[in-house]
Amino acid sequence: MLGEDAMDDTGPIHTPRDIPAKRLDVPSTVSPQLQRSISMLAAAPRIPMNEAPRTAEAWRAFIAGADAQTLALRPVLAQMFPHTETKGEIAGVTVREIVPAGYDAARAGGRLLVHFHGGGYVMNGGEASTGEAVLGAHYSGLKVISVDYRMPPDHPFPAGVDDAVAVWTALLKDNDPAKMGAFGTSAGGGMTLAMTLKLKALGRPLPGALGLGTPWVDLTGASDSYQVNAEVDGIFSRFDAFAQAMAKLYAGDAPVSDPLVSPVYGDFAGFPPSILTTGTRDILLSDTVRTHRALRAAGVTSQLEAYEAMSHAEYIFAFDGPESAVAFGEMAAFFDKHLAR
Amino acid sequence: MLGEDAMDDTGPIHTPRDIPAKRLDVPSTVSPQLQRSISMLAAAPRIPMNEAPRTAEAWRAFIAGADAQTLALRPVLAQMFPHTETKGEIAGVTVREIVPAGYDAARAGGRLLVHFHGGGYVMNGGEASTGEAVLGAHYSGLKVISVDYRMPPDHPFPAGVDDAVAVWTALLKDNDPAKMGAFGTSAGGGMTLAMTLKLKALGRPLPGALGLGTPWVDLTGASDSYQVNAEVDGIFSRFDAFAQAMAKLYAGDAPVSDPLVSPVYGDFAGFPPSILTTGTRDILLSDTVRTHRALRAAGVTSQLEAYEAMSHAEYIFAFDGPESAVAFGEMAAFFDKHLAR
Repeated sequence: MLGEDAMDDTGPIHTPRDIPAKRLDVPSTVSPQLQRSISMLAAAPRIPMNEAPRTAEAWRAFIAGADAQTLALRPVLAQMFPHTETKGEIAGVTVREIVPAGYDAARAGGRLLVHFHGGGYVMNGGEASTGEAVLGAHYSGLKVISVDYRMPPDHPFPAGVDDAVAVWTALLKDNDPAKMGAFGTSAGGGMTLAMTLKLKALGRPLPGALGLGTPWVDLTGASDSYQVNAEVDGIFSRFDAFAQAMAKLYAGDAPVSDPLVSPVYGDFAGFPPSILTTGTRDILLSDTVRTHRALRAAGVTSQLEAYEAMSHAEYIFAFDGPESAVAFGEMAAFFDKHLAR
Repeated sequence: MLGEDAMDDTGPIHTPRDIPAKRLDVPSTVSPQLQRSISMLAAAPRIPMNEAPRTAEAWRAFIAGADAQTLALRPVLAQMFPHTETKGEIAGVTVREIVPAGYDAARAGGRLLVHFHGGGYVMNGGEASTGEAVLGAHYSGLKVISVDYRMPPDHPFPAGVDDAVAVWTALLKDNDPAKMGAFGTSAGGGMTLAMTLKLKALGRPLPGALGLGTPWVDLTGASDSYQVNAEVDGIFSRFDAFAQAMAKLYAGDAPVSDPLVSPVYGDFAGFPPSILTTGTRDILLSDTVRTHRALRAAGVTSQLEAYEAMSHAEYIFAFDGPESAVAFGEMAAFFDKHLAR
């Protein structure tokens, strides 16, 4: 802020801001379904995450627990959003094809979506990877190829990005890239961006449009919302020792600031039209906003959508609420507008 | 969030969330100018706002202090953004016409902007009302008519809305409404929406496009960011006793939930294309997001722009930084795209 002292460029620019403890009520400004989600997340026991697993075995145990939690939601999801899921392989990479009930190939006209799951580049692979893909397929009416990219502890970066690029490149043989969208949430949004950066570097055709759900784009932890929304977010509550260990486990020998690990440090010039989704309680609110600003600064068509009181990726888990329907509806409308016919 | 218990619709949906005290560092992810603004706001003494003025005289003294603070920035603003300011009257309402240096009437082609200042519907009238108008004129290259609408303590609602409608209606005589945009920040954004709601009700032509800077649209205090960003925001730190008193002082005999007082409760169907601006530390982040969602739900073209680590309306005060230039540049580009030629 300018003022008499502000013109003194030599002044300190590092006064921190102290925020007292506070109690957040469940807001009246969201749907009953989202209120229930917010309330349940608040009531859930807070697991201390000050210590990260120290061995590959300990990581595997943690991952198994996280995946089981995600899989517990699947019966209700499948009931609400009927679909078929077929496991297969493209370019040696495990993929799952999701076809929504009532799929109309003529109406799709060759359009399809490629999905990258979230889970911090560590969790929610395998059978646990397709929840968001089912929702994306339902709301778009398109087939979704969900990529089960390799992950740590066995396969750190760049294995996952290599898998994404390999699947995309193989799909180019039978598909028009301008008719193919790519999307994902959290690490899946980061992977979508990393794949696109890598494709650009390789001179290969890019997707026709991107759906970036609260993308994890800065694994260095610099985003301001890592402070502001710490503990506020009911799903990804803290960028703590655990999350930092996860970032390092994923990056492997690369620095976490590598643009293919933390895509906000990449060059988005020439990127396809992108839609970004976040919430006002999202710990990755800043990751999302910074990506949006960087895309627009690069001259890319970028649309930012935010949702009242939503935590990180909550639109995937609170899939019974109208906010989730609107969030996926906005993404589907964006793909419908920007993918070639 | 769905789960085994989530299907029980009778469960409690009111578990609050406890957030421990925290210290926010000045983020590395914004410009040095915005870092300085954030730091200066953190260093400024926190004025306890638990008690509101109780008499008209006490309100006037408070208003005079707030206006003097705003006016202190004007010499630097005028130096950076050369312009002429001419005080006049339209339909009996005081207005100030801002013409940016280098104004090109042929290039403007009959386009102009109407501005409503912020200040909680109580402060920043008179000479203190035109800072944002100067920035809007500079970045758009258009003339700006800034409306010095009547305010409490002498003139509560609906005096201000009546003034806005009167000026707009008078301007219609010599101007094409499709070539006129309306904009404002905070209460000015709320006033822009209230005027448009009232014009719609009266069956009069609406503006061609709206610029809504972190609009104050819910004077009942229901927005979730009133909790989440309390104390986080360096400019509008708390919706406390003082802010609540200001809301009631403005509303006068009307309930604060009246859609012309709290426009988020209005019907936005048929509204012109709108651009909304907010920041990740903004206490009115939710007001902005809820307005955006309501506009889109009504089928209105609405574009949301958010800025990393920005507090409420900080783009007006930190006008030396690139974030401010981008924020006003986005608004100018939006008007350029959506106003008729």
